[in-house]
Amino acid sequence: MSTPSYFAGLDVGGSAMKAGIVDDNGRPLASVSLPTEAHKGQEFGLERMCQAIRDAVSSAGLTLSRIAAIGVATPGLMDIPAGVILDPPNLKPWRNVPVRDHVARTFDKPTAFQNDANAAAFGEYWVGAGRGVSSLVFFTLGTGIGGGVVLDGNILTGRHSHGAELGHQKIEMTSPRQCTCGRYGCLEAYASAVAVVRRATEALAAGTSPSPLRERLQANGELSARDVFDAAAAGDPVAAKVVEQTAYYLAIGAMNAMHVIDPDVIVFGGGMIAAGEGFLERIRHHVRELAFPVPAQHTLLRYARLGIDAGFIGAAGVARQLVRGAS
Amino acid sequence: MSTPSYFAGLDVGGSAMKAGIVDDNGRPLASVSLPTEAHKGQEFGLERMCQAIRDAVSSAGLTLSRIAAIGVATPGLMDIPAGVILDPPNLKPWRNVPVRDHVARTFDKPTAFQNDANAAAFGEYWVGAGRGVSSLVFFTLGTGIGGGVVLDGNILTGRHSHGAELGHQKIEMTSPRQCTCGRYGCLEAYASAVAVVRRATEALAAGTSPSPLRERLQANGELSARDVFDAAAAGDPVAAKVVEQTAYYLAIGAMNAMHVIDPDVIVFGGGMIAAGEGFLERIRHHVRELAFPVPAQHTLLRYARLGIDAGFIGAAGVARQLVRGAS
Repeated sequence: MSTPSYFAGLDVGGSAMKAGIVDDNGRPLASVSLPTEAHKGQEFGLERMCQAIRDAVSSAGLTLSRIAAIGVATPGLMDIPAGVILDPPNLKPWRNVPVRDHVARTFDKPTAFQNDANAAAFGEYWVGAGRGVSSLVFFTLGTGIGGGVVLDGNILTGRHSHGAELGHQKIEMTSPRQCTCGRYGCLEAYASAVAVVRRATEALAAGTSPSPLRERLQANGELSARDVFDAAAAGDPVAAKVVEQTAYYLAIGAMNAMHVIDPDVIVFGGGMIAAGEGFLERIRHHVRELAFPVPAQHTLLRYARLGIDAGFIGAAGVARQLVRGAS
Repeated sequence: MSTPSYFAGLDVGGSAMKAGIVDDNGRPLASVSLPTEAHKGQEFGLERMCQAIRDAVSSAGLTLSRIAAIGVATPGLMDIPAGVILDPPNLKPWRNVPVRDHVARTFDKPTAFQNDANAAAFGEYWVGAGRGVSSLVFFTLGTGIGGGVVLDGNILTGRHSHGAELGHQKIEMTSPRQCTCGRYGCLEAYASAVAVVRRATEALAAGTSPSPLRERLQANGELSARDVFDAAAAGDPVAAKVVEQTAYYLAIGAMNAMHVIDPDVIVFGGGMIAAGEGFLERIRHHVRELAFPVPAQHTLLRYARLGIDAGFIGAAGVARQLVRGAS
C-alpha cells in the first residue's frame, strides 16, 4: 500500500491558491487554500506554493512518498514548455518565475505546469462535464473569459503558450467595445462578468423607466453581475435584455469554437454559471440559430461540474498524465 | 524494387478532379485532371474518380502494385470517419456517396478520406509552406474561404467533420454582411474573392471619382477579384482601399486562429495569393496591431507553396499516414 498512486494539484490565483490531492480516478481526497499574497514577492510565492502542497498532503492523511507527481496551474503570461510564469497581470510583481523547476526540485517529483484555464478544462474533461468525451472546449466566465481546449486527452497548449485564449476572439469590427486586454471587440469585452455589469449600467443610464436593478444601483452605488442575473430572474426588463444579449454573445463564442475546433462538448464554467439552467438554454437557443446545422444539432453544451476545484483537479490530472500517459 | 512505396492522392472539385502519385517524401511523380461532371450522377462520379487514379498511376509509369495506399479529398458536407460525402453544394446532385469504401474496394488498397481544405492544409504541412513545423493553420482564399488545421501531424477533423471551417467564424455583429452560407458576419463574407468583388462594386457605386477600376467595370459589366488587386497595384485608390480592408479582415481571421489554435505558422493559399508579397505584408502589419504580442511576434505568416497540387499531395499524405503513422 505504499505505491505512490496519488497526485497533487495546485491552482494559483491572484488572491488565493488551492492545493488538493486526488486519486488515480480523479477523486479529491482533501484540499487547502492559502492566500497568494503576490505582493510579498515571488520567493515568498514559491515557498507558499510548496507549503500549500505540503498542507494538502497532510490534510489527505498521506505522506509525500504516496504522491506520484505534482501539477501546478497558474494564470498567464507564461511559457508552458519552460515551466515559467513570465509577467502575470494578476500576480504582480512576479516576473519570470521558474515555478515548475522549483516545485520539482523541492519535492523531487515529476512536476507538470499549465495555464489555469487549461488545467480547469482538463479537470472537466477528466472527471467533470466532459467525462467520457474525446474533445472539449471550455469557457470560464468570470471577471474575464478564459478558455481551454482538450483534444483526444491532450491540452491544446499552442506553440507560444497562447492556445485557447477564447475570450480574445474578435467578434465585432464596426463598433467594438474595448477589452480589459486593451484590444477591441474581444468576446470578453461583451460577455465577462465585468462586461455584463458595464452593459447593464449603460442600459440603465440610457433609459429612465423604473427598474429594480436601477434601485439596486442607486442604493449600492454599483452593481455585480449577480445583481444583473438576479434582477433578470425577478423580471426586471432592463436586466433581462442584458442577460439575453449575454447569452447571444456566448453563443457566438461557442459557434466560432464549433466552426474551428468542432468538439464533442462545450462547457461553460466560472462564477457566471450561477445564472442557472435557463441561461444555458438561451445560449443553446442562439447556437441553434447561428451555427452550421450538424454541429448545432450534435454539440453538447453544458455547465461545468467541478466548480472552483476544476483547477487543482485538472492540474493533478496533468501530473498524472506525466507518469501515466494520455488517458 | 516492387515494394509498394508510392501513394495516390485525388482532389475532387466542383468542376475538375486532379489525381497524382507522390513518393514517400511527398514528391509528385505525375498528375492528371479530369472533368468532374457531377451532373452525370454519383455512379458516374465514383467511376470517374477511379479512372483518374488509374490514369495517374499510368502517367507515373507505375502499376497499381506499387501503390501502397490511396487518399481522396472532396468538398463537404461530409462524414469523414464514415468516408461519405453527404450533401455537397458543389457536387449536385450527389448525396450520401460512399467514396472511401468504393475506392478501397475497387483497388483493394487502404484508402483515406478527407475534406479538401484539410487535405490541402496537410499537403502544405507535409511538404509545402509548413514543412518542418509542428502545427499549421491554413486559409484557402478562393470563391469562399476554406480552412484546415494540422496539429502535431494530425488533421483537426472535428467531432462532426466540421473542424477548421475557418471562413465561418463570426467577426461582425452590428452590421454583418450576409455570407454565401446564409449566415451573417462570417469572415468569408468579407474576405473571399466574391466578397472582394462585392465590396469593390459597392465602393464604386458609392462614389463618382474617376478610377481605372470603374472604367474596367463599365467596359466589362463585371469585375473579378484579380481586377481589383491589379487596379490596386496600379494605384487605383478605390481598389487600394478595398485591398487594404481585405488584408485587415484576413488579419482578424489569422488573429482569432492565433488566439485559439496558436500554431507555428498560418498559411494563406488559393487564387487570391496571386496578389503577391505586398498583400501578405499588409496582413502581417494588421496582425502585429491586433494580436497578443507573443503570437504576433512569433507566428509565421506565409503563402502556400504547392498551389493547386496541395489537395492531391495532401490526400496522398493522409494515405501515407494510414500505413506509416503520423510523420
